[in-house]
Amino acid sequence: MTGSTFGKHFRITTFGESHGPAVGVVIDGVRPGIPISIRPIQKELDRRRPGQSRVTTARKEEDKVQILSGVLEGRTTGTPICMIVWNKDQRPEDYKAIIDVFRPGHAGYVYLAKYGIADFRGGGRSSGRETVARVAAGAFAKILLAKRGIRITGHTLEAGGVRAVRFLRGQIEKNNLRCADPEAAKRMERGILRAQKRGDSVGGIVEVIVENPPVALGDPVFDKLDADLAKALMSIGTVKGVEIGAGFAVARLRGSQNNDSLYYDRRKKRFRTRTNNAGGIVGGISNGEDIVIRMAVKPPSSIALKQRSVTRSGKSVDLEIRGRHDPCICPRVVPVAEAMVALVLIDHIEQQARVKKSVGMLRSYTR
Amino acid sequence: MTGSTFGKHFRITTFGESHGPAVGVVIDGVRPGIPISIRPIQKELDRRRPGQSRVTTARKEEDKVQILSGVLEGRTTGTPICMIVWNKDQRPEDYKAIIDVFRPGHAGYVYLAKYGIADFRGGGRSSGRETVARVAAGAFAKILLAKRGIRITGHTLEAGGVRAVRFLRGQIEKNNLRCADPEAAKRMERGILRAQKRGDSVGGIVEVIVENPPVALGDPVFDKLDADLAKALMSIGTVKGVEIGAGFAVARLRGSQNNDSLYYDRRKKRFRTRTNNAGGIVGGISNGEDIVIRMAVKPPSSIALKQRSVTRSGKSVDLEIRGRHDPCICPRVVPVAEAMVALVLIDHIEQQARVKKSVGMLRSYTR
Amino acid sequence: MTGSTFGKHFRITTFGESHGPAVGVVIDGVRPGIPISIRPIQKELDRRRPGQSRVTTARKEEDKVQILSGVLEGRTTGTPICMIVWNKDQRPEDYKAIIDVFRPGHAGYVYLAKYGIADFRGGGRSSGRETVARVAAGAFAKILLAKRGIRITGHTLEAGGVRAVRFLRGQIEKNNLRCADPEAAKRMERGILRAQKRGDSVGGIVEVIVENPPVALGDPVFDKLDADLAKALMSIGTVKGVEIGAGFAVARLRGSQNNDSLYYDRRKKRFRTRTNNAGGIVGGISNGEDIVIRMAVKPPSSIALKQRSVTRSGKSVDLEIRGRHDPCICPRVVPVAEAMVALVLIDHIEQQARVKKSVGMLRSYTR
Amino acid sequence: MTGSTFGKHFRITTFGESHGPAVGVVIDGVRPGIPISIRPIQKELDRRRPGQSRVTTARKEEDKVQILSGVLEGRTTGTPICMIVWNKDQRPEDYKAIIDVFRPGHAGYVYLAKYGIADFRGGGRSSGRETVARVAAGAFAKILLAKRGIRITGHTLEAGGVRAVRFLRGQIEKNNLRCADPEAAKRMERGILRAQKRGDSVGGIVEVIVENPPVALGDPVFDKLDADLAKALMSIGTVKGVEIGAGFAVARLRGSQNNDSLYYDRRKKRFRTRTNNAGGIVGGISNGEDIVIRMAVKPPSSIALKQRSVTRSGKSVDLEIRGRHDPCICPRVVPVAEAMVALVLIDHIEQQARVKKSVGMLRSYTR
Repeated sequence: MTGSTFGKHFRITTFGESHGPAVGVVIDGVRPGIPISIRPIQKELDRRRPGQSRVTTARKEEDKVQILSGVLEGRTTGTPICMIVWNKDQRPEDYKAIIDVFRPGHAGYVYLAKYGIADFRGGGRSSGRETVARVAAGAFAKILLAKRGIRITGHTLEAGGVRAVRFLRGQIEKNNLRCADPEAAKRMERGILRAQKRGDSVGGIVEVIVENPPVALGDPVFDKLDADLAKALMSIGTVKGVEIGAGFAVARLRGSQNNDSLYYDRRKKRFRTRTNNAGGIVGGISNGEDIVIRMAVKPPSSIALKQRSVTRSGKSVDLEIRGRHDPCICPRVVPVAEAMVALVLIDHIEQQARVKKSVGMLRSYTR
Repeated sequence: MTGSTFGKHFRITTFGESHGPAVGVVIDGVRPGIPISIRPIQKELDRRRPGQSRVTTARKEEDKVQILSGVLEGRTTGTPICMIVWNKDQRPEDYKAIIDVFRPGHAGYVYLAKYGIADFRGGGRSSGRETVARVAAGAFAKILLAKRGIRITGHTLEAGGVRAVRFLRGQIEKNNLRCADPEAAKRMERGILRAQKRGDSVGGIVEVIVENPPVALGDPVFDKLDADLAKALMSIGTVKGVEIGAGFAVARLRGSQNNDSLYYDRRKKRFRTRTNNAGGIVGGISNGEDIVIRMAVKPPSSIALKQRSVTRSGKSVDLEIRGRHDPCICPRVVPVAEAMVALVLIDHIEQQARVKKSVGMLRSYTR
Repeated sequence: MTGSTFGKHFRITTFGESHGPAVGVVIDGVRPGIPISIRPIQKELDRRRPGQSRVTTARKEEDKVQILSGVLEGRTTGTPICMIVWNKDQRPEDYKAIIDVFRPGHAGYVYLAKYGIADFRGGGRSSGRETVARVAAGAFAKILLAKRGIRITGHTLEAGGVRAVRFLRGQIEKNNLRCADPEAAKRMERGILRAQKRGDSVGGIVEVIVENPPVALGDPVFDKLDADLAKALMSIGTVKGVEIGAGFAVARLRGSQNNDSLYYDRRKKRFRTRTNNAGGIVGGISNGEDIVIRMAVKPPSSIALKQRSVTRSGKSVDLEIRGRHDPCICPRVVPVAEAMVALVLIDHIEQQARVKKSVGMLRSYTR
Repeated sequence: MTGSTFGKHFRITTFGESHGPAVGVVIDGVRPGIPISIRPIQKELDRRRPGQSRVTTARKEEDKVQILSGVLEGRTTGTPICMIVWNKDQRPEDYKAIIDVFRPGHAGYVYLAKYGIADFRGGGRSSGRETVARVAAGAFAKILLAKRGIRITGHTLEAGGVRAVRFLRGQIEKNNLRCADPEAAKRMERGILRAQKRGDSVGGIVEVIVENPPVALGDPVFDKLDADLAKALMSIGTVKGVEIGAGFAVARLRGSQNNDSLYYDRRKKRFRTRTNNAGGIVGGISNGEDIVIRMAVKPPSSIALKQRSVTRSGKSVDLEIRGRHDPCICPRVVPVAEAMVALVLIDHIEQQARVKKSVGMLRSYTR
């Protein structure tokens, strides 16, 4: 019951239900003196926001973020930063109609089993709305990473069975899918709208790439960088699988194919690999190559098609879910996934700050 | 640098390098009064042990476990349990020859970057030998789970491109692959020996199934049960991907296909699903169906084939690795994966113990 | 920099500066289904509030608490509870005048050393205003404890050299000192007003008594109940010493005097002690006797008397602090100390819930 | 039940019972490359060891420490360091005689209540023997602190009612009391032997002084340096009170007396205070002055004098404890208290390493 905190050094604690007064986050561990403005944070929230395009839900949530603490005259003070977003577009009546019937794929019945109580208001804490807090905190982390030259890019690699075959970064934010292949994006969109028309939804794959990551992030043996990334991404409600680098493809590779051969890059002054099957992480530690991570995104559970379900009292019924729902959640998962990756990276950077310094001090220790 | 601890309530801390005096684990949070013998723990270690069969390394490690604390007259006392395994078969000379050359796929160069020091003795802490500690602790957890009727079964689902098509539980421990399909096992073995002959290695997929799991394990929002399982499994050095239930296949399913329809099971007195695409976890919380989780296991990096690599001083060289190495690590990953799943489950069971009681107490609170 | 979180199972995270927009707290780990109203929480905040009487500061802060999450239709839902109090009575001009001079006894110069930044607005995070969040969370904890029949009572045992010699519980809230001895209270108050007139302040001792505590709280070896209580109370800005039971007096006792002799109480069905020098805690574990804990409260540092101090640029100056300050903080420390004790107790009760159940299960395990 | 871990960044986990096979500690978070030898660690253990002098117990424990991991060729590797001490002088028969009777002042009956089991072997985990692990880890921390010029000195300030009035550091290790005042030491010793002859024991006060501590250690608001020190020291079984600087004396001081006036020390290039009532910690953060902390040490509970007690079955009996026990534990608490202070300091130094660097980076951030 204390699962709302994430991170050790850059530590976030989130709160808020989908239809309560507000959602928000407290970030502890932010260094002092960092100039911070609300704009880039708001921009990330806008990327997550529903109602962006015709492939996302039509719900309107303005999601204006407000900073309650930790910032003085445009700079962080080193004290906890609380950000909140008031919930506005609450239409519990959409849900009250079906309050008594569990929705397949939703967590209502397991929440009931766990808590002896289930929030009828659209999912409560199990709703995707909690990701507002992740994105706000992640936006903060991304600002810090950008200052270090680290770039995090998420995109929809696959949706409804259509896979992107090109990677044109500049295209990502130009189509409704956040897909780096504009041709594929069009086909994805058509497929999604077709599914939506039938009252159905589609799944997909989201990929996040970290360019210019620091070398040496990740802590053996349990807090490996890839282990923490896997947890971070799997904690997103809609994700059912996570893979790094070659991922599940390694099952069919031989060692001689999968091993990334090593060389020394004199310009970058570090060891590098010629291929990147490892996805930038070896032995749980970043090696400086791009970190490449993909996640399986399930088709949204709220669909208009008639489904077989059950009432709280155990009676089998047919269910038709009304309301405004996403036919494919991938484009909105992109900023959430970027946020989670950013949070893991900044946390490990903070952790590593100590070690790095230590390595620099080896000489003084050893004399 | 504090990544050697895992779990909140049933918390393990591991120590030891591949070629130091010993590896071991301290378990804190074990309930008092539990009868415990060394035999089932030793048995799990024997399943992990090298030299079991011709598809694993020929290294001999006896791996006799010794309990140093926390047990009195055959019962746990509630105090920390320390178990150690002394390292015996140390042949650093195997490694000293190549001490100066980084091995592709190994963590030597990132450890050097991280710590300013690299243990030349066969990987040190990055060696698979640290999993001895995981298996010893996991064996303990499995004993506790078995008392609750929870069964954890790992098996090799795929190796070298051969996939099992049948699941005959009784067969798993009867072949060298720990594969539930004896026909597939034979073909896997042939493929592995062929690759080994060529000086190469093969990857695969290991699956773990949890039967009869408790309902309601998992903590929203970050400590979801699947998030913690993903971290646990991805922290195994050789794993590059983790998926739950339908996993990456959800990307190509529609909502109407992926949603598991609900009904009430009057005999079991709980809500159940007709299919199990969710893999036993909904909204991060166990729903009582079998938990099904798979992981991508990379082909072992230590191969005899000549590889292109680099020395510590940055010189490019050809490398041929001698020594005794596994051509396919899947059969030895099975007990490690089972151990990690067991550790996550027992930790969440301990966490949930409080909540469950609480739900039972709702009545008294509400009056 | 991540010191704003307290507790393991009933875990609070606080935020907010004295003169920022708001102060608040997120509580994670609250059980679901508990009826909760704002009134008892507001009542505790009113006890902490400045401007209560002539022995406290004349600043007026209404401190109206607002619940943002975790409560649905008057009951907890098991999700994080966020409570905030907006800051209203901000008069930074009182502080701006002295922005450049460090105030003796205040943390300005060490915050500057730590963060490279110092909040000029009346102490920022080092201000006593952060205790609003503690009291709000503690009020919550007290409600839960009261349901279990556990009563927590704080009182001013000593102030300005006057010590209470009687303990009349009913008197505590009837005088400005929160002293259980009305005669002593009068003399304390006279002494305080005298000191205030001279531009000075006085220290004191606050005691907290826990009646009817559960047996067996506290975790060997580092998380002993008294260790956690000591940390909780010493973390209050104004506290310079903590003692349990006989406390520092044990230094002059012999073993034969200090040992509490044991007997079995047939009515209460538990072992009891005839004396309570241990203060209810033996070996770090509660024994069921009253928990008695005292803390040394320093005289407030903000005094009107001219003091020798230094500017940021290192120049020695005379300083006269204006503004509205407490001549003795003891009466306002009382609710804060109660809150911290309540938070420690509920956290250990949640922890122990598991163990207790476990002990009850010993039989089933051992068969 | 997971209270055997201490620290966040320099984190220790201890294990072992008084009469089990071994006691030990795992330290995680030690920087790599630090030269380390067993000698200074052994030396600290020898200071803690029983049988040192006629004012301590006559039990003989050699307490030879052995390092199992984390050190390679005389240097730390950055991986967890496990140290164990085998238990040798086990005489359970001393205890078996009284197995059925609870000893006043001992934790037997509360352990029984907590765990449903009580280790009859001389206290098990509640025995002072667990401090072997603290001292071994603390010795390690002291080595690291010494490299930074930080000196930690513990001494017996008071015993059996005799208080030291001089502080001659060089004398501390020259008398049986570890008292800095040789005259007082003699009187203390006489008092102790007198009490012992009567079958009784005496209490005292131990003080620890940290010279040349870093400025800016300590994390607002809960993880204040003094809060963590208070917890660390109160977690020692025999300690019943902790105070910092002026401590409980502040209750009788006025603000004008207690405030330490500030000046700028041009040689040391930092702000200093003319007096040190704060004991080196302001607002929970170290200000660079000596850290001064005292703890109340209770008279040992194991005394030969006949005491009134109770059997497990609830029968009142007279008890005479045989065996070899300390008449005054202060001299043996000294190294334990130093160890705990060292562990807190190194942990906060590791934490602060990040912030400090951050403050140094303010400029780069702000441009």
